[in-house]
Amino acid sequence: MSHLLVFLDIKLADFEFRIIKKDRNCEARVGLIKTPHGEVNTPVFMPVGTQATVKTLSSEDLKEIGAELILGNTYHLYLRPGHQLIEKAGGLHKFMSWENSILTDSGGFQVFSLNSLTKTTEEGVRFQSHLDGSYHLFTPEKVIQIQHALGADIVMTLDEPAVYPCSFEQAKRANDLTNLWAERCKTEFEKLVSEKPNKHKQALFGIIQGSAYPDLRKESAKYLVNLDFSGYAVGGLSLGEPKVTTNEMVEISLSYVPQDKPRYLMGVGTPEDIIDSVFRGVDMFDCVLPTRNARNGSLFTRFGKMIIKNSEYASDFSPVDSECGCSTCRNYTRAYLRHLFHTGEITALRLATIHSLYFYTDLMRKMREAILSDNFLEWRQKFLSEYCTEEKGTEKVISGGNVEDDQS
Amino acid sequence: MSHLLVFLDIKLADFEFRIIKKDRNCEARVGLIKTPHGEVNTPVFMPVGTQATVKTLSSEDLKEIGAELILGNTYHLYLRPGHQLIEKAGGLHKFMSWENSILTDSGGFQVFSLNSLTKTTEEGVRFQSHLDGSYHLFTPEKVIQIQHALGADIVMTLDEPAVYPCSFEQAKRANDLTNLWAERCKTEFEKLVSEKPNKHKQALFGIIQGSAYPDLRKESAKYLVNLDFSGYAVGGLSLGEPKVTTNEMVEISLSYVPQDKPRYLMGVGTPEDIIDSVFRGVDMFDCVLPTRNARNGSLFTRFGKMIIKNSEYASDFSPVDSECGCSTCRNYTRAYLRHLFHTGEITALRLATIHSLYFYTDLMRKMREAILSDNFLEWRQKFLSEYCTEEKGTEKVISGGNVEDDQS
Repeated sequence: MSHLLVFLDIKLADFEFRIIKKDRNCEARVGLIKTPHGEVNTPVFMPVGTQATVKTLSSEDLKEIGAELILGNTYHLYLRPGHQLIEKAGGLHKFMSWENSILTDSGGFQVFSLNSLTKTTEEGVRFQSHLDGSYHLFTPEKVIQIQHALGADIVMTLDEPAVYPCSFEQAKRANDLTNLWAERCKTEFEKLVSEKPNKHKQALFGIIQGSAYPDLRKESAKYLVNLDFSGYAVGGLSLGEPKVTTNEMVEISLSYVPQDKPRYLMGVGTPEDIIDSVFRGVDMFDCVLPTRNARNGSLFTRFGKMIIKNSEYASDFSPVDSECGCSTCRNYTRAYLRHLFHTGEITALRLATIHSLYFYTDLMRKMREAILSDNFLEWRQKFLSEYCTEEKGTEKVISGGNVEDDQS
Repeated sequence: MSHLLVFLDIKLADFEFRIIKKDRNCEARVGLIKTPHGEVNTPVFMPVGTQATVKTLSSEDLKEIGAELILGNTYHLYLRPGHQLIEKAGGLHKFMSWENSILTDSGGFQVFSLNSLTKTTEEGVRFQSHLDGSYHLFTPEKVIQIQHALGADIVMTLDEPAVYPCSFEQAKRANDLTNLWAERCKTEFEKLVSEKPNKHKQALFGIIQGSAYPDLRKESAKYLVNLDFSGYAVGGLSLGEPKVTTNEMVEISLSYVPQDKPRYLMGVGTPEDIIDSVFRGVDMFDCVLPTRNARNGSLFTRFGKMIIKNSEYASDFSPVDSECGCSTCRNYTRAYLRHLFHTGEITALRLATIHSLYFYTDLMRKMREAILSDNFLEWRQKFLSEYCTEEKGTEKVISGGNVEDDQS
């Protein structure tokens, strides 16, 4: 009997977010998100699970790495295997055998980035599938319905990202449409919630756009906050703009968002970018960098990137990082990993992915610990002094987005 | 102190084999091999780990599947990463982080099957690397030295397999050379053992050849038994000969091998072939079928092959086999696996491989249980009545050999 009560309690738990600690010296904060599928400690990095799998990994692998929240891509899952099929399977969690929390994007970014011919009207965006050329229409209502069928814990509004660089007028038009769509998404979301009171509660996040224009960022943020979402994402960044612009836009966007709501910087990024953004008060991140780079043999370590295929590792029988606790570092050497890459063994891709995702997960944990001890700034300085980066302060940054669209 | 003693005891344990139970109604037997790296229950199936990895799997995966003995390919490891490098790493076990037992083949089969231009003399076989065309010479002494450096628990003599079909004269010449080489392998093996008394003890197996000629099989077996090896392999079968011939050659070969030595049928095969050979008293098997087929989406189940990409599984939310205990069946559905194959996700290859290797491992366990209960024949009948096979009794069988040479 008590088991049943606990179960019901978990299933029906609403989305919650609370700040546990704000760093005394900057905007960085440690928080806790509660979803129907568990707790998520923030700042959090979400591994990208585009097609109902984080490439090369099983759900057991993700659990062992310590992932608490992963991302699924609505556009890809809508096309294959289809949201109705996933709903029939009992939702995305059950389909991919993942017990912890999931966030799905709205698919907007993929519609615009994977399709050269899209037709955007007030109604929505018409596009051709990148797989078979078939025609589809995403309306704000439709993407909420799809995400409702997928059953993620956190779902996103449909937005029209303004491509960088773009004129003020273009960015303004995209903003107006994004605002209108956000409102319609919210209406549809609430309608679905009221229709199915027994389904586990999802949370809806709005997406702040505005390209590199401070006034538009402000307008977008204020408009969305007025609609009252469970969380706020900052979109349309890391698309080639200078890093100072990214940081400025993050700061402006977040300055209009209530402190007690989680903030999600979409598609970012490198360890340095994530640290910079945690410093500015961002709570959630996603990016394909650790996973995609790992499949190319470029591993993240506390000293920077390690190109494991390099001949210098041919007879190096130490782990990738002697201080790393991941299963790859506990069991295998650099020489072995290099051999696997060198001989084209796909085990290489999984072992490398495990390491780099663990690195990101552990990086977030270390930041949380530093914030809890009020020494985030010192921690950051120490980390960056050891970390060898190829990117300088004013260089352009393209993080790689939030979709795994290659098959390597 | 006691720990150290135990450790030394394990490290220096000699190779041992004992028969635990022989079935009352046929030649099938349950045995136990002891190696410096643990116990191996026979009949045993050895997953093929060509390039120091069983394709798509980590050593942890193999452990969970229950593998007790795996195969490494001398030819491939000699070329990449090189046996000296693996010796420097502390041996193949340490290089690939595998604690249980390993058998390495002699490389002869790959030299002949991967190279169209080989030059065989009494000295050895000269060949060009299939990777870069460089010239190499494998002598009996050399392959023992390589396998000594790799440090497998069981190593094989260099043989010249007679390609099927071939004339009696060709087969006779190959036999004579194989006999000569076996003797030289044994001499080199004993020399290396006496030079390094503190290294863990390896066991050397001889390989019976003779193509499809009963007299040559007999001659080969008697010659090798006279040299006294730790175990005997039957080679040169499953190369396209009729199944009745395979079985006949296995029977003849084994009839000259002492009961108290382990018998290994190389490169075999399908579940039916393995069952047929256990019936005839074979203890050890290896084959790429379960792993290679899995990567092509063809899974082994107790009802036969399952082509998981088929559309009939698109919304089938049951596991591959509801009675299977593998981690794939415990966690994932047919629909999910099909989706992963359909979208080209490489996680598919690993999950499928885990299932099919578990199926093979479990098949061997079930046979051992049946033999221990003296009802192997009934068990076999029941298994084959449920198992749907495409191969009929007199068809030709090519099992796929014992090397994973594709990169899929």
